[in-house]
Amino acid sequence: MTLRIGIAGISGRMGKLLAEEVAAAGAELAGGIGRLGDAAGLFAGSDVVIDFTNAAAAEAHATLAARHGKALILGSSGLSAAQEAAVERAARQVPVVYAANFAPGVNLLFALAERMAAALPPEQYDAEIVEMHHRQKVDAPSGTAIGLGRAVARGRSKTLEEVGMESGRDGHTGPRATGPIGFAALRGGQVVGEHTLLFAAGSEHIALTHRAFDRRVYATGAVRAAHWAVRQPPGLYDMKHVLGIG
Amino acid sequence: MTLRIGIAGISGRMGKLLAEEVAAAGAELAGGIGRLGDAAGLFAGSDVVIDFTNAAAAEAHATLAARHGKALILGSSGLSAAQEAAVERAARQVPVVYAANFAPGVNLLFALAERMAAALPPEQYDAEIVEMHHRQKVDAPSGTAIGLGRAVARGRSKTLEEVGMESGRDGHTGPRATGPIGFAALRGGQVVGEHTLLFAAGSEHIALTHRAFDRRVYATGAVRAAHWAVRQPPGLYDMKHVLGIG
Amino acid sequence: MTLRIGIAGISGRMGKLLAEEVAAAGAELAGGIGRLGDAAGLFAGSDVVIDFTNAAAAEAHATLAARHGKALILGSSGLSAAQEAAVERAARQVPVVYAANFAPGVNLLFALAERMAAALPPEQYDAEIVEMHHRQKVDAPSGTAIGLGRAVARGRSKTLEEVGMESGRDGHTGPRATGPIGFAALRGGQVVGEHTLLFAAGSEHIALTHRAFDRRVYATGAVRAAHWAVRQPPGLYDMKHVLGIG
Amino acid sequence: MTLRIGIAGISGRMGKLLAEEVAAAGAELAGGIGRLGDAAGLFAGSDVVIDFTNAAAAEAHATLAARHGKALILGSSGLSAAQEAAVERAARQVPVVYAANFAPGVNLLFALAERMAAALPPEQYDAEIVEMHHRQKVDAPSGTAIGLGRAVARGRSKTLEEVGMESGRDGHTGPRATGPIGFAALRGGQVVGEHTLLFAAGSEHIALTHRAFDRRVYATGAVRAAHWAVRQPPGLYDMKHVLGIG
Repeated sequence: MTLRIGIAGISGRMGKLLAEEVAAAGAELAGGIGRLGDAAGLFAGSDVVIDFTNAAAAEAHATLAARHGKALILGSSGLSAAQEAAVERAARQVPVVYAANFAPGVNLLFALAERMAAALPPEQYDAEIVEMHHRQKVDAPSGTAIGLGRAVARGRSKTLEEVGMESGRDGHTGPRATGPIGFAALRGGQVVGEHTLLFAAGSEHIALTHRAFDRRVYATGAVRAAHWAVRQPPGLYDMKHVLGIG
Repeated sequence: MTLRIGIAGISGRMGKLLAEEVAAAGAELAGGIGRLGDAAGLFAGSDVVIDFTNAAAAEAHATLAARHGKALILGSSGLSAAQEAAVERAARQVPVVYAANFAPGVNLLFALAERMAAALPPEQYDAEIVEMHHRQKVDAPSGTAIGLGRAVARGRSKTLEEVGMESGRDGHTGPRATGPIGFAALRGGQVVGEHTLLFAAGSEHIALTHRAFDRRVYATGAVRAAHWAVRQPPGLYDMKHVLGIG
Repeated sequence: MTLRIGIAGISGRMGKLLAEEVAAAGAELAGGIGRLGDAAGLFAGSDVVIDFTNAAAAEAHATLAARHGKALILGSSGLSAAQEAAVERAARQVPVVYAANFAPGVNLLFALAERMAAALPPEQYDAEIVEMHHRQKVDAPSGTAIGLGRAVARGRSKTLEEVGMESGRDGHTGPRATGPIGFAALRGGQVVGEHTLLFAAGSEHIALTHRAFDRRVYATGAVRAAHWAVRQPPGLYDMKHVLGIG
Repeated sequence: MTLRIGIAGISGRMGKLLAEEVAAAGAELAGGIGRLGDAAGLFAGSDVVIDFTNAAAAEAHATLAARHGKALILGSSGLSAAQEAAVERAARQVPVVYAANFAPGVNLLFALAERMAAALPPEQYDAEIVEMHHRQKVDAPSGTAIGLGRAVARGRSKTLEEVGMESGRDGHTGPRATGPIGFAALRGGQVVGEHTLLFAAGSEHIALTHRAFDRRVYATGAVRAAHWAVRQPPGLYDMKHVLGIG
């Protein structure tokens, strides 16, 4: 039977990408609502609802998902403790996938980075992270680069703060320390996001690279999560569960 | 206490690299024998012996390791069934690390490739492997590239034969099939070995790259295995165990 | 004064990109015609006309450009000898930029490849070309890869046929010959086009890489050619002249 | 007739590499002197002398080259004005190749970088330079990276100071400015030197990469310069002349 997917926030940029990806995946677009739509009706008519709107809506939608017995895919960020508690309550009754980043590749990257760091001793392998983004980006390193750094630290059973960062080398730096992770940032053109994590030893290098080409990748990941969620027992999941890399 | 490492075949190219790496790791070079050396004496005076010589010696050395209660690191290839059986018998009494490739990075690569393939559905992610080697290499793809392909297939719960290979595209190829793994080979200069495994979807790419700069990496891996082995119970191990990526 | 640019074929995919790029460049869209539009009126009201339509229209538009004394940017391919002759006649009276590929980067790539090949002796530097395209592409190597190979051969004062190609290595290849250019093709995802030309010597590698992200790059190049053309004397030019890399 | 090459400073690390490269090139090692050797005899018995020793010796060797009518390849750095004047005087009588860096690839890189920058307008193409070196290196960016930046600036008819540098981005950087060149430094392992110059526009990227694997590349370049120099009229040359990229 064809999966019926509902979309909250269908008139936004992300909503349109989601609708296209629902169609591309051979699912049925069960309905979509904008800012003031009939959320109860949306849940009633769908097997699963995808919501990338905002923190306030997240709480209401989680409650509706539980009431209607429907799965929820939640991509909003900035939830308060109370809003997160509502999501957790709903997850006791229905499957909820709640993630900060739905790109399968980025989630896989974090899992692989941790595993690499666990296998490659810091005395022999210097870890360097280099990222490139479009010219409008105003800070460095990127959040994903820092997330990668945290994954490396985790693989070494430490926090990023314990491991240390060498970010933005310039001028007289002294020799590289053993342990800290290096960060470098490139800016230019309209690059959506490129990240490379490199482990450099004297006689071998191992690198992991992720390149995102458009925001559609987040929609693709959310639709994949929808297909996965409807086959799960109630619970709170993230993309690592969806991808089987937990 | 300083680890005492013995080296079989110390006068060969690999033996010299091993001796240098023993020193670099702060271990003690307990002794080394050439082709006709006193193997029993070598085992008696060492905590662990590294042997990269040949299949015939492997059998004798495995027997000596068991008799003297010493760990063995074995990098020889081409063992017959009888020779392998001797190695397995020894491994019931002492720890034996027996591997085709001691480069930590290559072993890690295989483990990561399998995990990536398990997470990235072949309908959306085309897997491509490109390798570069020195101009003297006479075949393509490299053994490590094929090993990577096998790891990808394994991650998809298939054999490489079931998945299929598109190797050496040239001329009218038709559109790329969904499922088979692409292989491409570059040859030039004196490249020791570079391998990239790329998963390409419409809106993201994830790549894993390994570059070997010199054969020393095999010696480094073997000395690492030696330090690891002496702390293990008897058993037959490979580099995945040493690296904790089994 | 603002440049007035007319577009032939404005309703097609390329025409729309051209109109957007005219606006982005701060020029005035003087007019646009579709398949049956008033070409004479278009030339009358423009300083320069961009035509990416077809070979038959190219001849008519070249004649109109000459009659109205307006510059012409011509991106159509497949012109017959008679059609090319018409373009050459027009170019005696007005500036005409006629090119197979308007991407600035690709034209620059060819010029740089020739210069690199002239400086790097084939006895020491093996030339390898690797390209990646989307999964729908049906042949290999790509036309641009072959163009790069021709540029390398030209830099060595030979033809590509004289230099030789090693394309699609697979199986027992024997050692790499000295002189021939290697070609390798990757296929996957929706890659618009990536090309790398690598010169590999024993102790250094030099590589040139081009990545195209969307077809807009051709429109950008054409609008750039328009701005350049109106300041030139009559003549037949290609993108190398526009870019100052002739 | 076989070229007779003499080497000043033959007992140093560079001298040994030079001797090996003379043999590899099929030339004759006419002689070699250490710190206190007979320089006059060396020049008498050679067609050309290679000198990578020091600034003081450079002056004496230049004078001897002129007196004996022999070509000189000079790789010493830090010459005083008086020492440079002596080199220039010699170059009126014999061919002298005097360069800061004999790696063919690096010299080619500078020439290509300038050409690329001249063809790619800074309003559309952001220039970024990323380099990687071994963990012992104490400053950033590398001298070669800055040399690349100067070449880019020259291609834009400016100095690097006029163009500006964005080096070591970290924290709140604000959006990337149009014009300045970005610099990023990676440190790790035993990398001899990797440099990439990237021009990033919205719809295409063009990159130039150089990787040095060992210091031998400088010896190779010097021996190549020796073969070239003996066929030239008197004059002061650098590696661009040798490579035909002047």
